[in-house]
Amino acid sequence: MANTEPATVTNKQIIFSGYVSGFPKESDLKVTTTTIDLRIPERSTSVLVKNLYLSCDPYMRISMGKPEPLSSSLVPPFNTGEPIIGLGVSKVIDSGHPDYKKGDLLWGVVGWEEYSVITLFPYSHFKIHHTDVPLSYYTGLLGMPGMTAYAGFYEICSPKRGETVFVSAASGAVGQLVGQFAKLVGCYVVGSAGSKEKVDLLKTKFGFDDAFNYKEENDLNIALKRYFPEGIDIYFENVGGKMLDAVLINMKLNGRIAVCGMISQYNLVDPEGVHNLTTILYKRIKVQGFAVSDFYDKYSKFLDFVLPYIRQRKITYVEDITEGLESGPSALLGIFHGKNVGKQLFVVARE
Amino acid sequence: MANTEPATVTNKQIIFSGYVSGFPKESDLKVTTTTIDLRIPERSTSVLVKNLYLSCDPYMRISMGKPEPLSSSLVPPFNTGEPIIGLGVSKVIDSGHPDYKKGDLLWGVVGWEEYSVITLFPYSHFKIHHTDVPLSYYTGLLGMPGMTAYAGFYEICSPKRGETVFVSAASGAVGQLVGQFAKLVGCYVVGSAGSKEKVDLLKTKFGFDDAFNYKEENDLNIALKRYFPEGIDIYFENVGGKMLDAVLINMKLNGRIAVCGMISQYNLVDPEGVHNLTTILYKRIKVQGFAVSDFYDKYSKFLDFVLPYIRQRKITYVEDITEGLESGPSALLGIFHGKNVGKQLFVVARE
Repeated sequence: MANTEPATVTNKQIIFSGYVSGFPKESDLKVTTTTIDLRIPERSTSVLVKNLYLSCDPYMRISMGKPEPLSSSLVPPFNTGEPIIGLGVSKVIDSGHPDYKKGDLLWGVVGWEEYSVITLFPYSHFKIHHTDVPLSYYTGLLGMPGMTAYAGFYEICSPKRGETVFVSAASGAVGQLVGQFAKLVGCYVVGSAGSKEKVDLLKTKFGFDDAFNYKEENDLNIALKRYFPEGIDIYFENVGGKMLDAVLINMKLNGRIAVCGMISQYNLVDPEGVHNLTTILYKRIKVQGFAVSDFYDKYSKFLDFVLPYIRQRKITYVEDITEGLESGPSALLGIFHGKNVGKQLFVVARE
Repeated sequence: MANTEPATVTNKQIIFSGYVSGFPKESDLKVTTTTIDLRIPERSTSVLVKNLYLSCDPYMRISMGKPEPLSSSLVPPFNTGEPIIGLGVSKVIDSGHPDYKKGDLLWGVVGWEEYSVITLFPYSHFKIHHTDVPLSYYTGLLGMPGMTAYAGFYEICSPKRGETVFVSAASGAVGQLVGQFAKLVGCYVVGSAGSKEKVDLLKTKFGFDDAFNYKEENDLNIALKRYFPEGIDIYFENVGGKMLDAVLINMKLNGRIAVCGMISQYNLVDPEGVHNLTTILYKRIKVQGFAVSDFYDKYSKFLDFVLPYIRQRKITYVEDITEGLESGPSALLGIFHGKNVGKQLFVVARE
């Protein structure tokens, strides 16, 4: 369906400078301006969208690294000289695809730019039908991180009432939800985070039974024993490294570890060694890596589950929102230093 | 049922000297001689057995360590000054238990001694009904190691025809069976072992598609890439440490790792660090520790499965048998240095 509006407009973009080793720097992501024709060519099935909210997620660091067989299965690498790719909430400007029309809202894979031409593939994008909740939630609570928390906790961890749950990076986009889901099931849940402000959020806003600042603990093993004298049934892993090592020796028999992320390791040239793996044997532990993309067939079931809780204010969500496409690079870099409080995203346009 | 024979006889025993740190030494296990009354007291439900074959198994090192919450769930620690405890094939001499009578053969938990008084608890002992196969097999192929291979491979790894399987310590009591089970399923299977003799066994006797001597490889990662250019679907983990680290980066998407043992780590005061755990995330790998004791309800199903293969000589088994109770300590110590070729056990008495 061709659009009759003439417009070629400027299109600001965040361009990937090239593969990153160690912590990414601002110079790895450069702002540039190009132009874009706001019409989809005849016979194309692409969709042209205006990006409203763009999401900063830890997994994006993996796409910044040198492509290796190791990482290729989780996310594709960014292309040097092209806009980096992420998740966002967008509005359809023009569409060659029968399922989308001008004005539709969707969330999914887009470039970091004002306008993107998107090609649809299974589960690459989801139409947004519920707008009585903040649109930005579709980068978090109602998007990939929410679905990650839902699949990781309910499907991978098989939680039971009365079990003990530990969540690292617990105030992040995924962690804050895992804690709330754990309380819904009737678990005892403790979270770790990297500042007093975040720890306070966990205890006062998200309803964690307890929380601690891992930066203030000399010995993570001792810290965990304080909160889990009987041990941990479920660990929702977001950080890896030293925390995983300490958690392993505090796991209970038949414990489950859902490996959602290992943010402490993504920026290391040489990943840390984990020494306590014999406990996987001694305690018959299941350690399961997972990718949310394997669970998107359950997305509508997830919405049916979570939307009523949001409307009843039984589930809450904290976002860390910066303004403007130009704010994106520092917002993204900040999450690798724990600067964000809650789900990090930025506004490109409000409508 | 009281026995009318009068006999009090001498009872040679292998006594545990005390908790071990590092590799165990011969002095940690001392031969002594005491006496035993060969009659079960009136009203006791115990069973008095004569031990025929005793088993040397890697897990026994865990029972030699200082008892810690860590290890307690897998196996109980040995008691200082008492005979060490293991698995064996025994003949009933006298019985206060209605299910056992004089002359019955059984396998299960006994002391390292000529005669043991055993207390029955669920799955502690299994009566031996099939004696057309070597009795010693009930310490291996038809006992705990066989059941371990069966449960670990079929239940934990969920193998499918055409998948690639790697087995470490592959000529050992469990590994040699995992390789043969993998071939029965139609998998491609490669094993590692620590000598040319063992590697030859894997290829010529057990039907592994290929095998290598890990001691001759400078880089285990490169070795694994040679045998698994497309990666590994299933890793049957018997060793831990460096091998696990190399396997992790060679796993395929949705790979499964059954953690059966980590013999390379049991004797280390400080366990080795494993660095490539992010692949659990990138490749969505399941790492599952398991204990055979959780699967003994399937033991008779296992026998129904495996006995026909043995009788048809489609499954074979290599044992490393030494003579006499006194040979037990050095036989046991030897397995931690890879001295055994096949399942290690020793003969206490032939009938």
